Amino acid sequence: VSELTVVPFRPQPSQYAWTFGGAAPVLRIRPGSVLELWSEDCFAGRVRSKDDLVSVVCEFPFLNPQTGPFYVEGAEPGDTLAAHFVSIEPSRDWAASTTVPLFGALTSTHLTATLQDPLPERVWMWQLDRAARTCRFTALDSAFTVDLPMDPMHGTVGVAPANLEVLSALTPAAHGGNMDTPEMRAGTTCYLGVNVEGALFSLGDGHARQGEGETCGVGVECAMDTVVVVDLVKGRPTPWPRLESDTHIMSTGSARPLEDAFRIAQMDLTEWIATDHGLSKLDAYQLVTQAVESPLANVCDTNYTSVAKIRKEWLPDRRGPLADVHRQLRDVGRRYLAGR
Amino acid sequence: VSELTVVPFRPQPSQYAWTFGGAAPVLRIRPGSVLELWSEDCFAGRVRSKDDLVSVVCEFPFLNPQTGPFYVEGAEPGDTLAAHFVSIEPSRDWAASTTVPLFGALTSTHLTATLQDPLPERVWMWQLDRAARTCRFTALDSAFTVDLPMDPMHGTVGVAPANLEVLSALTPAAHGGNMDTPEMRAGTTCYLGVNVEGALFSLGDGHARQGEGETCGVGVECAMDTVVVVDLVKGRPTPWPRLESDTHIMSTGSARPLEDAFRIAQMDLTEWIATDHGLSKLDAYQLVTQAVESPLANVCDTNYTSVAKIRKEWLPDRRGPLADVHRQLRDVGRRYLAGR
Amino acid sequence: VSELTVVPFRPQPSQYAWTFGGAAPVLRIRPGSVLELWSEDCFAGRVRSKDDLVSVVCEFPFLNPQTGPFYVEGAEPGDTLAAHFVSIEPSRDWAASTTVPLFGALTSTHLTATLQDPLPERVWMWQLDRAARTCRFTALDSAFTVDLPMDPMHGTVGVAPANLEVLSALTPAAHGGNMDTPEMRAGTTCYLGVNVEGALFSLGDGHARQGEGETCGVGVECAMDTVVVVDLVKGRPTPWPRLESDTHIMSTGSARPLEDAFRIAQMDLTEWIATDHGLSKLDAYQLVTQAVESPLANVCDTNYTSVAKIRKEWLPDRRGPLADVHRQLRDVGRRYLAGR
Amino acid sequence: VSELTVVPFRPQPSQYAWTFGGAAPVLRIRPGSVLELWSEDCFAGRVRSKDDLVSVVCEFPFLNPQTGPFYVEGAEPGDTLAAHFVSIEPSRDWAASTTVPLFGALTSTHLTATLQDPLPERVWMWQLDRAARTCRFTALDSAFTVDLPMDPMHGTVGVAPANLEVLSALTPAAHGGNMDTPEMRAGTTCYLGVNVEGALFSLGDGHARQGEGETCGVGVECAMDTVVVVDLVKGRPTPWPRLESDTHIMSTGSARPLEDAFRIAQMDLTEWIATDHGLSKLDAYQLVTQAVESPLANVCDTNYTSVAKIRKEWLPDRRGPLADVHRQLRDVGRRYLAGR
Repeated sequence: VSELTVVPFRPQPSQYAWTFGGAAPVLRIRPGSVLELWSEDCFAGRVRSKDDLVSVVCEFPFLNPQTGPFYVEGAEPGDTLAAHFVSIEPSRDWAASTTVPLFGALTSTHLTATLQDPLPERVWMWQLDRAARTCRFTALDSAFTVDLPMDPMHGTVGVAPANLEVLSALTPAAHGGNMDTPEMRAGTTCYLGVNVEGALFSLGDGHARQGEGETCGVGVECAMDTVVVVDLVKGRPTPWPRLESDTHIMSTGSARPLEDAFRIAQMDLTEWIATDHGLSKLDAYQLVTQAVESPLANVCDTNYTSVAKIRKEWLPDRRGPLADVHRQLRDVGRRYLAGR
Repeated sequence: VSELTVVPFRPQPSQYAWTFGGAAPVLRIRPGSVLELWSEDCFAGRVRSKDDLVSVVCEFPFLNPQTGPFYVEGAEPGDTLAAHFVSIEPSRDWAASTTVPLFGALTSTHLTATLQDPLPERVWMWQLDRAARTCRFTALDSAFTVDLPMDPMHGTVGVAPANLEVLSALTPAAHGGNMDTPEMRAGTTCYLGVNVEGALFSLGDGHARQGEGETCGVGVECAMDTVVVVDLVKGRPTPWPRLESDTHIMSTGSARPLEDAFRIAQMDLTEWIATDHGLSKLDAYQLVTQAVESPLANVCDTNYTSVAKIRKEWLPDRRGPLADVHRQLRDVGRRYLAGR
Repeated sequence: VSELTVVPFRPQPSQYAWTFGGAAPVLRIRPGSVLELWSEDCFAGRVRSKDDLVSVVCEFPFLNPQTGPFYVEGAEPGDTLAAHFVSIEPSRDWAASTTVPLFGALTSTHLTATLQDPLPERVWMWQLDRAARTCRFTALDSAFTVDLPMDPMHGTVGVAPANLEVLSALTPAAHGGNMDTPEMRAGTTCYLGVNVEGALFSLGDGHARQGEGETCGVGVECAMDTVVVVDLVKGRPTPWPRLESDTHIMSTGSARPLEDAFRIAQMDLTEWIATDHGLSKLDAYQLVTQAVESPLANVCDTNYTSVAKIRKEWLPDRRGPLADVHRQLRDVGRRYLAGR
Repeated sequence: VSELTVVPFRPQPSQYAWTFGGAAPVLRIRPGSVLELWSEDCFAGRVRSKDDLVSVVCEFPFLNPQTGPFYVEGAEPGDTLAAHFVSIEPSRDWAASTTVPLFGALTSTHLTATLQDPLPERVWMWQLDRAARTCRFTALDSAFTVDLPMDPMHGTVGVAPANLEVLSALTPAAHGGNMDTPEMRAGTTCYLGVNVEGALFSLGDGHARQGEGETCGVGVECAMDTVVVVDLVKGRPTPWPRLESDTHIMSTGSARPLEDAFRIAQMDLTEWIATDHGLSKLDAYQLVTQAVESPLANVCDTNYTSVAKIRKEWLPDRRGPLADVHRQLRDVGRRYLAGR
C-alpha cells in the first residue's frame, strides 16, 4: 500500500485569495494528495459579535477569503479535478450570520433594484457544540433558542474559470465557486472541469449548516478545518460541477434566472446518465423526471445554483473514467482517518 | 364520538371540471366530511399504450380533468379550507408518462419560444405494483428496467381563484391548482384560502410518483382512489397554499421566473412563523435561512412552483386558529381508516 | 359606396366588464362596424385629486373597467378580429397617475416578494390640453412642471381568452388584454385571434401618454372617447396580438420573465414575415435581427409585454389574407372622419 | 485655443485584448485626447464568406477582439471616464452576420439548456455602401435583397471591472463591455465608472447596424475606424454605464433576467435625474414612467442589456459635474473634424 501524501496548509491573512483565477498558487501538489486545510469564514473573521455589522467591519471586495489556490501537477484543460471531502469541521465554537444591505432573496438588491429602503442590518451569533453536533440559534427579538443539527459544508469550492476570466469568490458558475450547496459535505466527491494548467483549486466559505437556497444570503458562517483528497481524471472534461456521494450522483447549474440553473443541472444529469450509464437521452430524461431530487443551493448570489441528484442504485451500472473515482478517493480518506 | 360523514363520488366523463372557477359544483358538502373520490389521469385516460401520442389522442384544452368542484357549506372569502389526505392510491396497475411537444423544462415551449424543432414525442408505460409499492420504469431504447418506490400524490388540488377569474386546471397559482408537488401525499393537510362562497374545491392529476421539478412536464400519471377530509377554518385567510404533515409545515409559491416562486414560498413561510409562532420577522428570516428545505415542485407549468418546508420541532409552539387543525383532521382520518 | 354602420356605446358603471371572458356581451355588432365608445379610466374614475389614494378609494378587483364585450357576429375560433383605431381622445382635461403599494417595476410586489416596506403612496394629477396636445406634469415635491406631448392610447384591448379561461382585465396574454403598449394609438390596426364564438371584444385603460415599460405601473390614466372599426378575417388564426400601422408591422409577447415576452414577440414577427412575406425562417430571423425595433410595453403587470416592430418598406410584398386589411380599415376610418 | 492631442492606434492581431481587466495597456493617454482607432470585427476577421462557419473558423475564447486597453493618466476609482464618439465608420465595404450554435435569443443556449438540436449554422454577407449610407441584406434562401440605413455603432465599450475581476469581452455588466446598444453611435458620450487606476478603456465589436435586442446574437459585424475623445470627470462615481446625446440622457442595465436589466436602467435614470436635476426620487419615478423610451440593447449575451432614455428638454436644468461634459467633448470633436 502506498504512503499517503499529506499536505497541511493554513493561510496567513495576506495569503487569502479573493478570486477564482488571477491569484498565484500557494502550493503545488501532486494528484492524490490529502490536504489538511484551514479556512477563514466569509467575513474574513471580522464579524465576532452582534454589533459587528458587515457594512461597518467588512471591506468590499475583501469578502469570502479562499484557501488556495493549489496548483495540481499535470492538470490540463480537458481534465477533471476530483476533490473528495474526508472531513469538514468547524474550527471555533461560534459562527455568525447576518443580513447584508441589498443582499439576499427577500430584499431588493443591486441587480433587482427598487426604490425601497434596505432591510435593517442584524447579526445573529450561533453557538456550535462540536461534541453534540448542534448549532444553537438565539433569537434577537424574543427569548427563543433552538438547537439545529450541525451539518458542516463548504459554500465555495472551485478552480480557475475558462475564457481568460477572473471571477470574484462570491460568484458561482461553471468553474464551481460560491455554489453554496449543503451537499458539499464530508463524504462527497466534487468533480470540476479543469480550465487552466494546474487547475488552481481553492475552497472557503464554511457553513456549520445552511438551509436550501440560503434565503437571507448568509449561512451559519464559520472557520473550518477540512481534509480533502485532490485527484485528477485525465482526458475527461466536466462541463458543470458534479458531486458524488456513496448513494447519489448530482449535477449543479449556476445561472439566472433560477429556471436556467435548474435546466443546466437537470440537463447535465440527463447527459451524465446517458453518457456513463448507457441510457438514451430521452430515456434518461424520463427517468430523471420521475426520480430526481432538486434541492436548491443558493437563490441569493450573483448566479443562483440548483442541484439535481439521483440515487445510484436506480441507474444502470456506470462505465467509463469516473466509474471508480469516488470509491477510490473514499478509501484514501478512510486510510487517512485510520492513520490519524 | 360523532359519526363521520362519508361522501363517495366518482365523476362521469361529462362531469369532469377543466378549470378552477367557472364550473358548477358537483356536490354540496358539510365541513368535516370525508370524501371518497376517484379521479382520472391528466390525459383523461386516453394514453394507454406507447403508441398513444398526446398530440394525437388528446384534445386540448380537455386535459387534466378535475374531480369536483365541491361546494363547502359555509365557506366564504377570508376563510381557509383544510383538506387532509387520508389515502391516495393508484386505481390501476399501470400509469403513463410522455414527452409533449413544446412542453417541459428541457425543451423550448410556447412561452420560451425558439426556432428549433420540438423534441420527439414518446410514451413510457409504467407498471405499478400496489402490493410491493413500486413503479417499474422500462426504457424504450435499451433493455433497462428499474423499480422506483411508489409515492402517490395529487399534482392538482385547489379552489376557485380570486378576482373573478377562471383558470385552466393546468395552471398553479395562489388558489392552488396544478402545483405538482410530491409533498401532496397521504398524511398531509393542504390549506387553501377561500375566494368565493362555497370554496369550490377540486382535485386531480394523480401521480404514482414524480421527481422534484417534474422535469419533462409529466409525472407517472394514473387514475387515483383518494380519501380526503375537507374542513373549514373560519375567519382565517391563507394567501398562498400551505401544507402540513406530522413533522413539517410548508409554504408554496407559484410564479415565473422561478426565483419569484421561491421568494413567495420563503416569504410566506417566514410570515407564517412570525404570525403563528411568535418570532419577529427578521428572526424568522434567519431561522428559515438555516433550517429550510426547498424542494422544487414543477418547473414546467404555466407558473413554476417552489416549496419551503421546516420541521415543526424547531419552532416555538404554535398558537392561533391553525394550531390543532392538522392533528384533528389526522384523527378523523384514523377513525375513518379504523372503521373501514 | 356602402353606408357605414356606426354604433355608439357609453357604458353605465353597472355595465363595466372586469374580465376578458366571463362577461355577457353588451351589444352584438356586425363585422365592419364603426364603434364610438367611451371608456372610464383604470381607477373606475375614483382618483380625482392627490388625496385619493388607490388603496383607499379603489376596491380590488374592481379596477380597469372595460367597455364591452362586443359580440361580433360570425366570429369563430380560428378567425382573426381586426380592430382599427380611428381616433382616441381624452374625454376630460385631467388625468391621474399614482404609486400603488407593491405594484410597479421599481418596488417589490406580491410576486417579487420581499420583507421591505412598500413605497409611499402618492398621486400625481396631470393637466391635459387637448388643443395644444400636451400633458402637464406637476412635481409634488418641488416647483417643477413640464408639458409632454399628448399621445393617447389604450392600455387594454382584447378578446375572450382560449382554454375556457376568464382573465382579469389587469392581465395581458395571448388574448390581448392589459398589454399597455403606446403603439395602441389612433391609426393602428390590432389583430387578435378569436377564441370563442363572437370573439367578445372589449377595451379600456386609456392613457393620455405613457413611457415604454410603464415603470411605476400606472400611465397618465384618463377616460377616453374612442372610434374603432371592428372587422373579421375569417379562417386566419393569430397566435399573439399583432399591430399594423401605415409604416410598421408589430408583434407582441406577454409573459414572465421578460426575455420570454421578448422571445415570443420576436418569434412571432419572424414567423409572420416568413409566412406572409415569403422569406425562409432563417432569412427572416437575420432580417429581424438587424431591422427590428423592440420597445417595451409594460414591465409591471402580471405578464410583461414586449413589442417587436419592423418597417413594411423593408419587407417583400405581403401576400395572403392580411395583405389589405389595414389599408381597407384605414379607409373606412377616413370615410367616417370625413362624414363626421 | 489649445492644441488637440490626437493619438492614432491600430492594433496588431497580437495586441488584441480579449477581456476587460487583465490585459496590459497598449498606450497611456492624457485625459482629453482624441483617439483615432481601428478595430477588427467580433470574428477577429475570420468570417469572410458564407462558407466561413463560426464553429469552424473561429477559436473560442478568441472572439470579440478589443482595441485597447488605454491607460488614462490620473484615472482612479471613484472617477468617471467620458468617451465621446466623434465618428464611427466601417473600414471595409462588407460585413458579416451569422447564426452561432446555441447562441442567440430564439434558440436554446448553454444556459437556457434544452435537449433539442441547435439551429443550422448560416452566414449572411452584407454589402456596405459608405457613400449611400446603406447596408444591403441578401437573403440566402430566396432572391430578396433590401438596403437598410447604415447606423454604425460599437457593441463593446468598457473599462476594467471592479472587485478584482477579469471579464470576457463578450460580457456586459457595470463596467460596460458588450452592451450591444445601437445608441453607442457617433455623437454620443459614454460615461463609465472607473474601477482601477488608469481606467483601462477599450472598445470593439463594430456593427454597421443592429436591431434592438440583437435577436440572433450577431449584428452586421464589421471592422471600424473610430474617433473618440476620452476625458475624465474626477471624483464623480458612475454606477452603471450612462450615455448622453445632444437630445437625450440614457442609463443602461445589464443583468439576467431581462426585467433586472430593465430595473437597473430605469432605477439609474431615476436616481440620475434626482441627483443632477433636483427632483425628488418619487417625482423622478413618475416623470420617467411617462417619458422614458426603453429600447432593448441585447437579449442574447451573458447578461442582457436594457436602455432607459429621456429627452433632456423635459428635465429641470442639470447641475453638478456632468453638466457640461457632453457639450465640451462634442466641441472638441467638432474642432477635430474641422481640422481634418
